[in-house]
Amino acid sequence: MVMGFNILIMKTNTYAAQSATTPLAPFNIQRREPGAHDVQIDILYCGVCHSDLHIARNEWHGTTYPCVPGHEIIGRISKVGAHVKNFKEGDLAGVGCMVDSCRTCENCVDDLEQFCEKGPIFTYNSPDKHSGGLTYGGYSENVVVDEAFVLHIPHNLDLAATAPLLCAGITTYSPLRHYNVGKGQKVGIVGLGGLGHMGVKLAKAFGAHVVVFTTSANKVEDALRLGADEVVNSRNENEMQAHLNSFHFILDTVAAQHDINAYLLLLKRDGTLTQVGVPSEPLAVQVGSLIYGRRNFSGSLIGGIKETQEMLDFCGAHNITADIELIPIQNINAAYERLLKSDVKYRFVIDMASLKETP
Amino acid sequence: MVMGFNILIMKTNTYAAQSATTPLAPFNIQRREPGAHDVQIDILYCGVCHSDLHIARNEWHGTTYPCVPGHEIIGRISKVGAHVKNFKEGDLAGVGCMVDSCRTCENCVDDLEQFCEKGPIFTYNSPDKHSGGLTYGGYSENVVVDEAFVLHIPHNLDLAATAPLLCAGITTYSPLRHYNVGKGQKVGIVGLGGLGHMGVKLAKAFGAHVVVFTTSANKVEDALRLGADEVVNSRNENEMQAHLNSFHFILDTVAAQHDINAYLLLLKRDGTLTQVGVPSEPLAVQVGSLIYGRRNFSGSLIGGIKETQEMLDFCGAHNITADIELIPIQNINAAYERLLKSDVKYRFVIDMASLKETP
Repeated sequence: MVMGFNILIMKTNTYAAQSATTPLAPFNIQRREPGAHDVQIDILYCGVCHSDLHIARNEWHGTTYPCVPGHEIIGRISKVGAHVKNFKEGDLAGVGCMVDSCRTCENCVDDLEQFCEKGPIFTYNSPDKHSGGLTYGGYSENVVVDEAFVLHIPHNLDLAATAPLLCAGITTYSPLRHYNVGKGQKVGIVGLGGLGHMGVKLAKAFGAHVVVFTTSANKVEDALRLGADEVVNSRNENEMQAHLNSFHFILDTVAAQHDINAYLLLLKRDGTLTQVGVPSEPLAVQVGSLIYGRRNFSGSLIGGIKETQEMLDFCGAHNITADIELIPIQNINAAYERLLKSDVKYRFVIDMASLKETP
Repeated sequence: MVMGFNILIMKTNTYAAQSATTPLAPFNIQRREPGAHDVQIDILYCGVCHSDLHIARNEWHGTTYPCVPGHEIIGRISKVGAHVKNFKEGDLAGVGCMVDSCRTCENCVDDLEQFCEKGPIFTYNSPDKHSGGLTYGGYSENVVVDEAFVLHIPHNLDLAATAPLLCAGITTYSPLRHYNVGKGQKVGIVGLGGLGHMGVKLAKAFGAHVVVFTTSANKVEDALRLGADEVVNSRNENEMQAHLNSFHFILDTVAAQHDINAYLLLLKRDGTLTQVGVPSEPLAVQVGSLIYGRRNFSGSLIGGIKETQEMLDFCGAHNITADIELIPIQNINAAYERLLKSDVKYRFVIDMASLKETP
């Protein structure tokens, strides 16, 4: 089955899930040697996205095991293929949610590889056209990726805190940009977690008046520190009423069931609410919430490679990174349990040096 | 209570509902004499919108009785106030869903009076600032309206068939225009009733490739006759699958509960589905339907006065009217029953001359 594909030769240390119910544990995989257009990245840091947990535990019902999660990867180039143009050994490099796509469909040509009509190749748990198996993610000492899907990392940023930009950063940056959020606009961020806290920082950097909606009283102070101009307790009906018909844009990062109409009604005429959190059950939309005010309810999925680079450059210029808690990889299972309780401010990042300590 | 308002002096014949459960029947109301900015319109034709039935029967829980429905009004100016500028006695005139608004809020200033922040004054069952009572609609021998809310009617169109343009026409024209539907685009129309059949004619006139979705096999031929390029049986999963990811825009006119995700998934990346039918229960939106392809789910409500005039002029230039069944007002209750069974192609219009025959 592997014949006809590139020879697999690098033994690589990772942490992998062997089933939906087993904790992540050390596991050796094989990476391909870099091909002509590939770079090999020695991974320094990898962010822990909630998707990692969903997929490791097969909660989205598409996981093949063993599964090596991780798609917020920061590292340093250790090898380059013969035809690599934009990277050289020793360069900082980042890899986000995708490692390839068809590159020829309308969406790929429009630099929106996340909507590749044939389906993008995700960084882990996606069919790997090189190995014939599945892709393995960033909970790993290294990764080999076509340079077209590798990002340049600004040198002025803290590298560990930069890792979450590769998913949480672009996921919030892309819709804020797409809907032209900026000065003179009132922008809402629903939920203050890994995505929400990036949304606050970015919307503020774009010049918007930022209002955070949260149900956690203990996040108010943090929201203001992160740059919010106002914080609304979304369980307080009077506070919500005071903001009716006033928002140009709302970014909803909540992945749990919630009353979406309560937020749609806060939009001004022609305003847009973009959902980036993905509840597993449908959201009940009262059509009246959309019809009055010609409001829009939309969704957004990470961002294309070109825009991801633009986001990283913007973050470099504005000194924006994630608020993180650095952990050794040996703590990943405990971190997953804390993630389930939203007990992290605001993103776990794995210090991949710890992987070398694995016996 | 009436003191301080204009003197009410014209006795006017109408058909009115006296309660949610009584049939419409002859009833005399009083109209104001035209004020300085008012015109009096002798009504020739009035379309029968499904909203008329909802409100006559208090299905939206806001009806005050007696209720005179009707907001698709075509007639001839019989009197003009001293300061009326744009109309003269004998002119054709139309009145749609609104007869006034605050005229000063952001939305009114932007020619979107339907979204007036203080609430537009609807043509019937709305507080009437002149009488202190409620507005009475077009099932009536005449109506008195501020000229700012009166439309000019193209002379080349059949007048009875033009009446439905005032609600069904603008309700479909406005979103098709707002989302720039035109040549080179594939556009879906969901539901072939009063709204849908206008959507087909207008989308076709804008140059789009028009696909009608219907569950009624007996409407296929009609859809093609009205201008559809294709007709899809929305209950046939294979037919639906064949159109995945292919629509630039979909106009959904269905006011009953239905699976909105089945249509959202037919949109191309960045496509929009606009709901103009208003189901009473919420629609269940799978967030994944929006996130993949960055799709938009939006709503639209009639249109502003300026755009309504633009629509009428467009229909005049392209010879577009509604397909109607002309009825005497004495048949209105029977027509309502047929409306409930979607047994009309595609709009009832009352010939108001029949009102004079009322004993």
